[in-house]
Amino acid sequence: MSVLEMIDKPSDLHNIKPELLNELAKDIRQKIVDVTSQTGGHLGASLGCVDLAIAIHYCFESPKDKIIWDTSHQAYAHKLLTGRRDRFHTLRQFGGLSGFTHRSESEHDAFVAGHASTSISSALGYAVARDVLQQDYKVVSVTNDGSLTGGMTFEAMQNAGTLGTDLLVILNDNQMFISHRVGAFGAFLAKLLTLGSVKRFEKKVEKFLTRIHFWGAYLLRLGKRIKVFLFPGVLFEEMGFSYLGPVDGHNIHQLIEVLSAIKKLKGPIVLHVITKKGRGYEPAEHDPVKYHGVTRFNPETGEMVKPVSGPPSYTKVFGETLVQLAKQDPKIVAITAAMPEGTGLDLFHKEFPARFFDVGLGEPHAVTFAAGLACGGLKPVVAIYSTFIQRSFDQMMHDVALQKLPVVICLDRGGLVGEDGPTHHGTFDLSFTRLIPNFTVMSPKDENELQHMLKTALNQPGPVVIRYPRGSGTGTPLDTELRLLPIAKGEILREGKDLTIVAIGTLVQNALEAADILEKEGLSAGVVNARFVKPLDKEFYKSIAAKTPLLVTLEENSIVGGFGGAVREILDGTNTVIRSIALPDSFVEHGAMRKLYEKVGLTPAQIASKVQEFHKQRVATA
Amino acid sequence: MSVLEMIDKPSDLHNIKPELLNELAKDIRQKIVDVTSQTGGHLGASLGCVDLAIAIHYCFESPKDKIIWDTSHQAYAHKLLTGRRDRFHTLRQFGGLSGFTHRSESEHDAFVAGHASTSISSALGYAVARDVLQQDYKVVSVTNDGSLTGGMTFEAMQNAGTLGTDLLVILNDNQMFISHRVGAFGAFLAKLLTLGSVKRFEKKVEKFLTRIHFWGAYLLRLGKRIKVFLFPGVLFEEMGFSYLGPVDGHNIHQLIEVLSAIKKLKGPIVLHVITKKGRGYEPAEHDPVKYHGVTRFNPETGEMVKPVSGPPSYTKVFGETLVQLAKQDPKIVAITAAMPEGTGLDLFHKEFPARFFDVGLGEPHAVTFAAGLACGGLKPVVAIYSTFIQRSFDQMMHDVALQKLPVVICLDRGGLVGEDGPTHHGTFDLSFTRLIPNFTVMSPKDENELQHMLKTALNQPGPVVIRYPRGSGTGTPLDTELRLLPIAKGEILREGKDLTIVAIGTLVQNALEAADILEKEGLSAGVVNARFVKPLDKEFYKSIAAKTPLLVTLEENSIVGGFGGAVREILDGTNTVIRSIALPDSFVEHGAMRKLYEKVGLTPAQIASKVQEFHKQRVATA
Repeated sequence: MSVLEMIDKPSDLHNIKPELLNELAKDIRQKIVDVTSQTGGHLGASLGCVDLAIAIHYCFESPKDKIIWDTSHQAYAHKLLTGRRDRFHTLRQFGGLSGFTHRSESEHDAFVAGHASTSISSALGYAVARDVLQQDYKVVSVTNDGSLTGGMTFEAMQNAGTLGTDLLVILNDNQMFISHRVGAFGAFLAKLLTLGSVKRFEKKVEKFLTRIHFWGAYLLRLGKRIKVFLFPGVLFEEMGFSYLGPVDGHNIHQLIEVLSAIKKLKGPIVLHVITKKGRGYEPAEHDPVKYHGVTRFNPETGEMVKPVSGPPSYTKVFGETLVQLAKQDPKIVAITAAMPEGTGLDLFHKEFPARFFDVGLGEPHAVTFAAGLACGGLKPVVAIYSTFIQRSFDQMMHDVALQKLPVVICLDRGGLVGEDGPTHHGTFDLSFTRLIPNFTVMSPKDENELQHMLKTALNQPGPVVIRYPRGSGTGTPLDTELRLLPIAKGEILREGKDLTIVAIGTLVQNALEAADILEKEGLSAGVVNARFVKPLDKEFYKSIAAKTPLLVTLEENSIVGGFGGAVREILDGTNTVIRSIALPDSFVEHGAMRKLYEKVGLTPAQIASKVQEFHKQRVATA
Repeated sequence: MSVLEMIDKPSDLHNIKPELLNELAKDIRQKIVDVTSQTGGHLGASLGCVDLAIAIHYCFESPKDKIIWDTSHQAYAHKLLTGRRDRFHTLRQFGGLSGFTHRSESEHDAFVAGHASTSISSALGYAVARDVLQQDYKVVSVTNDGSLTGGMTFEAMQNAGTLGTDLLVILNDNQMFISHRVGAFGAFLAKLLTLGSVKRFEKKVEKFLTRIHFWGAYLLRLGKRIKVFLFPGVLFEEMGFSYLGPVDGHNIHQLIEVLSAIKKLKGPIVLHVITKKGRGYEPAEHDPVKYHGVTRFNPETGEMVKPVSGPPSYTKVFGETLVQLAKQDPKIVAITAAMPEGTGLDLFHKEFPARFFDVGLGEPHAVTFAAGLACGGLKPVVAIYSTFIQRSFDQMMHDVALQKLPVVICLDRGGLVGEDGPTHHGTFDLSFTRLIPNFTVMSPKDENELQHMLKTALNQPGPVVIRYPRGSGTGTPLDTELRLLPIAKGEILREGKDLTIVAIGTLVQNALEAADILEKEGLSAGVVNARFVKPLDKEFYKSIAAKTPLLVTLEENSIVGGFGGAVREILDGTNTVIRSIALPDSFVEHGAMRKLYEKVGLTPAQIASKVQEFHKQRVATA
């Protein structure tokens, strides 16, 4: 029996010999490598905080104490320690465990987290609720150096510092964002402080000093400065936190010692812990970027299973097209928020380092920064995942749209994204971008059209959104000559007599396949590739509507206020019967894309069957 | 001729004797008091930075140099100095000058700003554009202590610090957010540094120290700590900015001296300037909160013109109702983002100080903090203006809705807001809140219904938005007994034969008046008060739709994806003819509400006329 098999719940950690904790860590790492080598997932970050997760669960009593993991893809060890060991092999699979923490999955998951920088805000909420309700538990936010670059963290820390309530923020520092040496000195200081002697001494000094008025105040400031001089966490101290650390995040026994001592301290505290991404698995330690998020790999060698060679991804086509366009136009610059590889902008970065800007996890700033770049005469292209651009909604509205600035926002991962699930699906973007005045919103039917859209977007005088999906393109040959697409008009792909399906983006292909199925069933369906969600050309849509007695809109976006709504708005006052197929008004779970498509009813066969139904209803009520 | 009359453009400042600059400041203050006493506006902040505006325009060459005012309501002096003196009396009036900076208003307005904390992001955009295009101009962001509490500022400073480009951030500190004494010492240090000697010395020391490896590194850190000890702006220094100050923001000549010297410095710089809100106008200096934003007042005495006593505002009814409910339920807590008075939560604060939380200008944090409070077992009520909740769109989606948390979000200033104009209208909220799954979205027809909605919202198991307008209620008597409203169903106010107007919120009253007009014109119009935007009860709407051959939706919200769209979605597949009256898909200008209503076609007469048209079209195509 492995040590891990002895742990069914966090309190079981006290039933094993302390010497076995390091072996437990080893078991957990082995399990994580074994499972993610089959399921894929966030390997590096989770390996990095196995020891930390053990120490936290050893010292705190979850679920009574609340442990909140920021951007919770590093919480695999937490899952294994909290009763989910036997289901861990279902990680990220349809119906299985989520790759993130979810309140609905376990009472030990105190908060959902797929977007970064939220854990101090939510932890502060718990802490304040505890105080108001006069309850007694501890609240721990495990954040990381990346999340510190997000503005919410700063807002939350200021608020926590002002309120002064008991709250522990563990800063899991696995990069060099804040650079400090780990070592005995840091651990020593941390332990020293936690023993209470320094705190008590400080209190006494403060009391004494405030008594002797002016000079007291002067000396107090002096004292604070000296403290700043001694302790490196001045940024946190200025915001009202006590800063402790740095400590070695892979020394479980030292972590337990420090955390046990900290539990007795009052007020908001930052404990700075240094960890190594990929710790304990050589290939991941060696190349942390490659092993941050993995697909299937050989656990022995770390070798990734090569995907069957297929068409290039939308991401890649976007990146290459932008480089191509930027070679001809020196005014094109690119901005992303901590996802150069994910958006394909790494290519641009390589080619034009001086014209590329990675702003960290600050999507709101990224968009307003781009607005400033546009004011200054450049052509900024912002590439961010659809789900994360939700953070920039106000900036798109107030800073870009109101001033009609030519900022091109490229939303990768639009629509369903598969295994990452509801925190990462980009299934609302067509609705919330099209409601912003002055924006042009488009979505390509394939990677070739994406090229033309990018050129078209950069030729527009105002702001543009281009939305495209995660993963492989359709394999359509790529035109070498880029051309401008006619704004607001769709492309008629297939003529029909009984009805017309107007589809946008990814689902154009499914519409064509559905039309084939319908034809076999004796129904003649036209198919239009809409290309644009906004603006829509009224005459074009009227002419489409006039062709058949039924119009069906089709989109991989929420039914609420999406493309279907746009078509209804443009045809307002006409007698066209319009029906819509779209995603439900709910959050879609995680799982393989194939499973999700079936679940939401967007396979060609399901589309054909719904269209049949709409057709029958129309005939019945005509 | 006053000194102000000699200034038609910033460069004219060099054509007057330097001794006259203080008189100019006096003239500007007089003008601001005179005009705002008639038009209303942001008096206190603008008076506070008159001297700063003069010094900036003296030292920099707008429009070549870019000057960006954060939350630009303090930019009145800037407007007076940049050729808008003769139009200044039209401030905030329909067709007149905006109360904020707008690129469309003047070439001296480098960026729009009505929402806070954007100026460093946009200024950095300009600065980088300048570098990429190899141009030569200065970029100045004038931010303030309030805007520093917003996370975007932090994101932008980190980015600017990393890029290291030339950028001046003037921190106009008129409160005590960052508390430092103003005085000779600060000014001395600032001047000293700007002379370049210290900077040069530092460079030399750094070079020397890095040579002698370990001890060098140690001494370098020591040196940095000592600098921190000497200079108070450690927060900025940590983010890569050079910090200078604090300097007296009312000493024009000293400011000019400092700014002239700073112009020669490289890299990102923060100049900390201390000003007094309301400076130079005794009543405003005395009571800065009261004179922050003013309505008409007597310029001699400062006495506000009392509004004709009318019905209580929605804001007040909200505040009082929440206090009443909180007396019965100790779990109710309230959160706002720097607007306790504006949202009516000052009442709650007074009554329950331990259950009230003002998080500063951090709307994203406010919502996720509330999510945490809800997880901790409380009933959080977040009150924020509609336009500012746009900043929390992702937090409503990812942190509240996904977890179905019972957070009640109250949107004051929903719909048009009048004189503050497009940066402040809340005209998109029904669209972007209803597209979030799991949210209930309601809007009351009057202040009495607001009471019941608040009770209803706090009784819901999931998240709720209540949206209501700025200003006075309708004068409807307030029920003393609060009751639960039936979810998803509207209220039939008037039966009709030819058509039914389904209105939401403020426009229910206009719908009733339009129905009166239509009746005189021989058309029988029913009126339904929808109450809910989401969810909508299908059976209820089907029964409404069955009553008349035409349904007209009516809302003070963008036509794109709003309430009209919701009604179409719920009646999808039925044969009802639905038409919609709403705000256009564009930003509405500023001006008196009466003028704006006319402009967008929402007066009762205009509504009646549109409905007539819809009726005729329906009859013609039937």
